[in-house]
Amino acid sequence: MIAVVTGAVLGLALTLAGTPLFIKLLVKRGYGQFIRDDGPTSHHMKRGTPTMGGAVILVAVVVAYFATHLIMLASGAPSSGPSTSGMLLLLLTVGMGLVGFADDFAKISKKQSLGLTPWAKIAGQGGIGVLFAILALNFPNDDGLTPASTAVSFIRETALDFSVAGPVIGAILFVLWANFIITGTTNGVNLTDGLDGLATAATAMVTAAYTIISIWQFNQACANPDSVAGVCYSVRDPMDMAMLAGIITGSLIGFLWWNTSPAKIFMGDTGSLALGGALAGFAILTHTQLLFVILGGLFVIIALSVILQVGYFKLSRGKRIFLMAPLQHHFELKGWAEVTVVVRFWIIGALSVGLGLALFYAEWVVFQ
Amino acid sequence: MIAVVTGAVLGLALTLAGTPLFIKLLVKRGYGQFIRDDGPTSHHMKRGTPTMGGAVILVAVVVAYFATHLIMLASGAPSSGPSTSGMLLLLLTVGMGLVGFADDFAKISKKQSLGLTPWAKIAGQGGIGVLFAILALNFPNDDGLTPASTAVSFIRETALDFSVAGPVIGAILFVLWANFIITGTTNGVNLTDGLDGLATAATAMVTAAYTIISIWQFNQACANPDSVAGVCYSVRDPMDMAMLAGIITGSLIGFLWWNTSPAKIFMGDTGSLALGGALAGFAILTHTQLLFVILGGLFVIIALSVILQVGYFKLSRGKRIFLMAPLQHHFELKGWAEVTVVVRFWIIGALSVGLGLALFYAEWVVFQ
Repeated sequence: MIAVVTGAVLGLALTLAGTPLFIKLLVKRGYGQFIRDDGPTSHHMKRGTPTMGGAVILVAVVVAYFATHLIMLASGAPSSGPSTSGMLLLLLTVGMGLVGFADDFAKISKKQSLGLTPWAKIAGQGGIGVLFAILALNFPNDDGLTPASTAVSFIRETALDFSVAGPVIGAILFVLWANFIITGTTNGVNLTDGLDGLATAATAMVTAAYTIISIWQFNQACANPDSVAGVCYSVRDPMDMAMLAGIITGSLIGFLWWNTSPAKIFMGDTGSLALGGALAGFAILTHTQLLFVILGGLFVIIALSVILQVGYFKLSRGKRIFLMAPLQHHFELKGWAEVTVVVRFWIIGALSVGLGLALFYAEWVVFQ
Repeated sequence: MIAVVTGAVLGLALTLAGTPLFIKLLVKRGYGQFIRDDGPTSHHMKRGTPTMGGAVILVAVVVAYFATHLIMLASGAPSSGPSTSGMLLLLLTVGMGLVGFADDFAKISKKQSLGLTPWAKIAGQGGIGVLFAILALNFPNDDGLTPASTAVSFIRETALDFSVAGPVIGAILFVLWANFIITGTTNGVNLTDGLDGLATAATAMVTAAYTIISIWQFNQACANPDSVAGVCYSVRDPMDMAMLAGIITGSLIGFLWWNTSPAKIFMGDTGSLALGGALAGFAILTHTQLLFVILGGLFVIIALSVILQVGYFKLSRGKRIFLMAPLQHHFELKGWAEVTVVVRFWIIGALSVGLGLALFYAEWVVFQ
């Protein structure tokens, strides 16, 4: 618990202090965001705001993670050092962030809004996603728990287990399923980005929820003799997951200080892909894959708005459901002020998180 | 737990749907806010935005509270109906709201920014505060627990108990102490109001925290045989407190939808005094008086900024620490955009709540 608070405070301090330094560096080098030409025209005034702010978040998360473990070791607190699950979550987060960074950097150096080719992006994301999923099925601990399991999970693992198809086919099906989740979350956060502070705070709400969920899973872990029988959780490394979720939450709050309206910096694809990877990692490693659809309801709604818009456009040969997709731009074009859209979408995000946490807790209360 | 979610959803639905109706009513009657002349001049453009929005929150809270109890009774859920603590919290909240309403209404009908005379306001608030405090020391339940106790509380009751001075003097000291808390919170929320959405969301964060705290106190109540010995809580009616905190949180979120920048309506003194009363009520009835100083850190900081400013102005005969107090106007005059101040103050509020909850939980973990 001390580790969670220490990590969160460290992450917060690093982005609070580090972001303005990074802004200065980017401005000095003349790196600014090139707003995509298909967004609302009112966004063209944002040209010149530095981007790639996700890099500060990533550095803060990695530094705070190892620093907190060092502090815990040095203070003689009970700590087993960085966990396998923690390292895997960092692999997925940082890996996706690097793909996003390559994309952001290509945009800046070519001075155009396109970035990496679609295939290079898919190859990078797919490679990291497959690597994460395969590794997550390995490394059993003393209790035989691997970071991920082949069972589809809602609030905990369901009876639907890919391994009924045999170990190899089961693993392949899991890798496909995990990559479906990862692709969904990275695109979801990426699409949610675009208004000052929107994606940053919306993601922080979900990682805050995962901090609480992981602490609860630690207290009620099946390996814990004090846990209530019948409703204990079979998850690997829950306290390290809580610490990482706390660190990411703290880092996002510190970044939000600078990223809120009017934004001094954007997170860029560096940030949105990394955070999408982190969210998918929490959903898979805490065994709450389907609960994430509720916790991350805002991202799901925004991603759906794009799917509906594109699908309907093709089916109807040119008609649109929304004035513009993703959904936030629809409301901007309807005349809502940017901050109104942001705060109202935060409200939807907070309600989604509240509903998800209530479900998570209610399941435990009902079945205990 | 079902009651908490039901209540929160009801409160949310009532303010989401009720606020625009109330706005229409006020606009039709030509009631708008008259901005005080001592605020930043940029606020003069806000003249005409309807106020007294707190009335919608109050109606939603009262209706949702009784409706949820009726729904629970009708559905055969285990429920003992409205509790003594719940009724006392409503008394304090609605009572303070009525004082605020009288103030708001005086402002509107006199078409000036002054409202009630200071003495009328103090008499109204003091009368309700004293009544609440006296009643809260009565009505023991079957376990002998009264809603409030004469002991000063931090995370739970401390050894510092006013009753050592004898029952009568102890009760008088408690009434004074309770009114010190009530005066502090009502003024704190009142001073925090003034920027679109600021006080609404900041209060919602604290009531959300009290929802969690009360659920935890219910699970770990000394009356509950499953509670962990040694760290159980002696509080009356914790589940009804959780329900009320959830209802107020939901109602505030629904109101925030309309109250966020650019605000379609202000909460007015009706809202800020009522919410200050509610927060003081939670601090006193959940026996977390000093923890509230941390949970409500944002309100404390803003109230302190006024005390420091006025005190220094008098001591130095005319010098100022801040460009303007309360603190939010200082940063506005320093050139921060209004929304930047709001979101950054929300961040401070969220960090305060996070720290308070972490302390509350850590105390339980350490002493179990």
